[in-house]
Amino acid sequence: MTTVTLQSLNAADKAGFIAAVGDSYEHAPWVAEAVVGQRPFANLAALHEAMMAAVRAASAEQRMALLKGHPDLAGKAARAGTMTADSKAEQASAGLDRLSEAEYATFHKNNDAYRKKFGIPFIVCARRHSKDSILHQFEHRLRNNVAAETKTALGEVFRIVALRLDQRVEAPDKLKVHGRLSTHVLDTQAGHPAGGVAIELLELAAHGHPRVVASATTNLDGRTDQPLIGGRPIPIGRYELRFHMGAYFTRRGAPQADPPFLDVIPIQFAVAEPEGHYHVPLLVTPWSYSTYRGS
Amino acid sequence: MTTVTLQSLNAADKAGFIAAVGDSYEHAPWVAEAVVGQRPFANLAALHEAMMAAVRAASAEQRMALLKGHPDLAGKAARAGTMTADSKAEQASAGLDRLSEAEYATFHKNNDAYRKKFGIPFIVCARRHSKDSILHQFEHRLRNNVAAETKTALGEVFRIVALRLDQRVEAPDKLKVHGRLSTHVLDTQAGHPAGGVAIELLELAAHGHPRVVASATTNLDGRTDQPLIGGRPIPIGRYELRFHMGAYFTRRGAPQADPPFLDVIPIQFAVAEPEGHYHVPLLVTPWSYSTYRGS
Amino acid sequence: MTTVTLQSLNAADKAGFIAAVGDSYEHAPWVAEAVVGQRPFANLAALHEAMMAAVRAASAEQRMALLKGHPDLAGKAARAGTMTADSKAEQASAGLDRLSEAEYATFHKNNDAYRKKFGIPFIVCARRHSKDSILHQFEHRLRNNVAAETKTALGEVFRIVALRLDQRVEAPDKLKVHGRLSTHVLDTQAGHPAGGVAIELLELAAHGHPRVVASATTNLDGRTDQPLIGGRPIPIGRYELRFHMGAYFTRRGAPQADPPFLDVIPIQFAVAEPEGHYHVPLLVTPWSYSTYRGS
Amino acid sequence: MTTVTLQSLNAADKAGFIAAVGDSYEHAPWVAEAVVGQRPFANLAALHEAMMAAVRAASAEQRMALLKGHPDLAGKAARAGTMTADSKAEQASAGLDRLSEAEYATFHKNNDAYRKKFGIPFIVCARRHSKDSILHQFEHRLRNNVAAETKTALGEVFRIVALRLDQRVEAPDKLKVHGRLSTHVLDTQAGHPAGGVAIELLELAAHGHPRVVASATTNLDGRTDQPLIGGRPIPIGRYELRFHMGAYFTRRGAPQADPPFLDVIPIQFAVAEPEGHYHVPLLVTPWSYSTYRGS
Repeated sequence: MTTVTLQSLNAADKAGFIAAVGDSYEHAPWVAEAVVGQRPFANLAALHEAMMAAVRAASAEQRMALLKGHPDLAGKAARAGTMTADSKAEQASAGLDRLSEAEYATFHKNNDAYRKKFGIPFIVCARRHSKDSILHQFEHRLRNNVAAETKTALGEVFRIVALRLDQRVEAPDKLKVHGRLSTHVLDTQAGHPAGGVAIELLELAAHGHPRVVASATTNLDGRTDQPLIGGRPIPIGRYELRFHMGAYFTRRGAPQADPPFLDVIPIQFAVAEPEGHYHVPLLVTPWSYSTYRGS
Repeated sequence: MTTVTLQSLNAADKAGFIAAVGDSYEHAPWVAEAVVGQRPFANLAALHEAMMAAVRAASAEQRMALLKGHPDLAGKAARAGTMTADSKAEQASAGLDRLSEAEYATFHKNNDAYRKKFGIPFIVCARRHSKDSILHQFEHRLRNNVAAETKTALGEVFRIVALRLDQRVEAPDKLKVHGRLSTHVLDTQAGHPAGGVAIELLELAAHGHPRVVASATTNLDGRTDQPLIGGRPIPIGRYELRFHMGAYFTRRGAPQADPPFLDVIPIQFAVAEPEGHYHVPLLVTPWSYSTYRGS
Repeated sequence: MTTVTLQSLNAADKAGFIAAVGDSYEHAPWVAEAVVGQRPFANLAALHEAMMAAVRAASAEQRMALLKGHPDLAGKAARAGTMTADSKAEQASAGLDRLSEAEYATFHKNNDAYRKKFGIPFIVCARRHSKDSILHQFEHRLRNNVAAETKTALGEVFRIVALRLDQRVEAPDKLKVHGRLSTHVLDTQAGHPAGGVAIELLELAAHGHPRVVASATTNLDGRTDQPLIGGRPIPIGRYELRFHMGAYFTRRGAPQADPPFLDVIPIQFAVAEPEGHYHVPLLVTPWSYSTYRGS
Repeated sequence: MTTVTLQSLNAADKAGFIAAVGDSYEHAPWVAEAVVGQRPFANLAALHEAMMAAVRAASAEQRMALLKGHPDLAGKAARAGTMTADSKAEQASAGLDRLSEAEYATFHKNNDAYRKKFGIPFIVCARRHSKDSILHQFEHRLRNNVAAETKTALGEVFRIVALRLDQRVEAPDKLKVHGRLSTHVLDTQAGHPAGGVAIELLELAAHGHPRVVASATTNLDGRTDQPLIGGRPIPIGRYELRFHMGAYFTRRGAPQADPPFLDVIPIQFAVAEPEGHYHVPLLVTPWSYSTYRGS
């Protein structure tokens, strides 16, 4: 995806501005048109705020049309390949492009029930969710009344747009759309960080196999050079961190039982705040370990 | 299995004594015969010791015949159902009665290689091992020389016999054949033991699914009424304890994230000393936990 | 102090019974007299219960006389040495026999204020308190109204009597007057209990020096052979456990910094339930440690 | 103290250069003179290295004179107030300006024994030590032979100079003379950092009272805004961190016992590497805590 600077957006002619950010609202370039005259925007937050204000100021019919313009999740458009590139990538991020037939059937049933009750497609900011979490949202939101749910759907649209703007526009400020998942391994037997420890991060699913979403090796400070997840939301869901400690202790010559009491250490936890910082460290000896949500 | 008291063994006539413990050595009642005149035995350890002394005092040919009298592990006798009841139960304890075809083939190949090199069947005290651990023993012991391995095989026979005597004879003393695996859940958020926590113990396997070997719920003291494994060796192998903490914290009304940061907590560890005491406790809040090999 | 069995109390003549337990209520043998005809008592709890019932059934004047029969805490009787042996030992247990002049003055002032407001001496079961805790009780109870405080004072009398009966009478049951303070040292660097660790238990005071109340060395299981406090209430107060870990790690040859990062480890905590079980363990490596209220 | 930039040192005339750094070697401006012609120095490390090379290249007599030019620790010059300002501040940093008479006597005796054996004053980089640690060094180094000790003394001179240059010269690089002592308080009961916790750092002494060397309150991230010690060596010695957790838990409304099980939590540890990073965090609930040397 090509990115533009906020500066060039501010300087562009009207057509250029709309070409750059007109599709941040799905099939609704009129939102960008509505704010083009308010330029220059001091920062990205101001642009996002102005666009949300334009949507709120529009007629109820326009807003309803905006909501209706979204594709179903794992729906016909997805299977036929006719979604916008953005929607396609967003749905793929939550694994909706690799559902089993049973899962497709569940989504299909939910989509129908939702449309029937609310008259709009089910909209959720997919980048903030795992597949399990989206299904949980479906069940939860199907119990809403129409007024509350229309408001919720619009809130999700704003989240989707915030992430699209974050990806497209370079600006001095950052929208609050990034979470961070990090770890730290401390060898409390030796009293120093544990370097060279292989780590995997798996996304767990109620059904189906765990999926490796990140792999890394700790550096001399016991940390990974990059956060395991960063620069994007952490999808709401359940995770497992796997720390290959047996191999580490063997390498540094620590006496261990045969087989070692601890080998690969799994830590399972859930993320509830996609924009939060989850620091999940491991304090470890060959005979003990601790973990906690740190900061 | 019927048990007898040491007292009655000491008082029995010769035939009765041999009927009771003659088959503790596989197809070798001569060992019991050799010690019948040494009665009374002050305790079970003395009986076991006398029988081992008789084996060591026998001719090399007799000892070799004793070793050869053992069945293959997961071999023809096992598949044909022609093993002694003891051997059958012992092999089943390590899961050798439910191997996949691929695993049968591996055992077959190992058995042949072992017999070819050492001239005896591969003998291991199966109750002290998981399937993975037996395969590991095969690989390890195939590298021995004949003298060392003959000695190792005899040591395994003595372990098998010790467990058979432990199961058959009630005596004031206990042979050192029992391990213990216990746990304890302490709610360090509330400062008291965590009662009512569901726990499962799974035996892990390099190939194939984990197998639940014990389930329990903690009592008011945060412990299980019975050890998870006790009164027998803990098979050498890898295990997972699963603590259902999310449900516990929900029940006692502790504030948690949605989904809860910690739900089912898995602790994976290996047992290397089947006769040892493994105490694997959990100190836990909704945001942190610790475990260690305790005592 | 000589002890008697409940059996012999039940069999004694009236004079013998009163001689044995008549002074359990301070200067009030009439309580024993009132229950002598209810013998035999099935257990110690039944005797204690019967005596409390007799006090509750007595006239208000009798009860008031009972309360007035108690000596001041650290008062004139104490300084003149004219208290009963029981009261003397009880006040000494809380350190009231070794007050500074400033502390005597504080007690004197509190005693006067209390008598003036409530018409009785300040009664507290001294064996359940440290000096600091008694002063805290003084302040707290001086704010009560007369009815509530009379009831509180009587409750304290019952606690005093329970402890006196516990010390004098051997019975199949135990009154719930015993707390327990224990510890356990686990060397999580080596994966086994830490034996041979010197431990001190100090009672802390808001003013004045800490006082060593117990010393012990851990056995091979990392525990002390006897609880640090047991068979009596744990006085409400603040404590410090001191674990001599540097010497332990040096003895077992663990590599340490010079000077060692951890040497004597102090754990400070307070006891609020004198009849509770306080288990305060230490999980420790040369570079880390944990403690918690266990069970 | 006025500081100069490395740039201005490189540009200064000879006299200016010597005026600025000539006294970094105690009473030995000849060292600065020896390197003035090697300018410009690319960085501070290069200047320090050049000066050390000049000392090593000088005659044995010159080096011995350099060593002899240092004042005794807590000696006559100190009491008479005739030391250089640098030496005065350095000795004060280790508390040598507030010794008891008994301590003065000990230093006096040690100084004499040292001069008698080695012919030079006892030189130690006082900013890297506590009083206890200096006395420990005295005892340790008195056992050296003359050759080893002369080398050790020169190494201490180089450390003293490194710290003087670090304080006087602003340069793009930093000499490795700074340690750091930091902490972090994590409330694992609530799953977030503990803000607003009062903390004190005390330097402990074998004799005499602990001395508060830093006080701070944790910020919203559970850390102190500044390291407890930073920008200088951490004196080798024993320390106590005191965390006022009872007040914190009371403020945030966490249920606690009365008195609270944990109130002020003391953590005692020793520093062995003055230029190291000591991170000593606290993971804490009202019923448990952990600490470790982190990174």
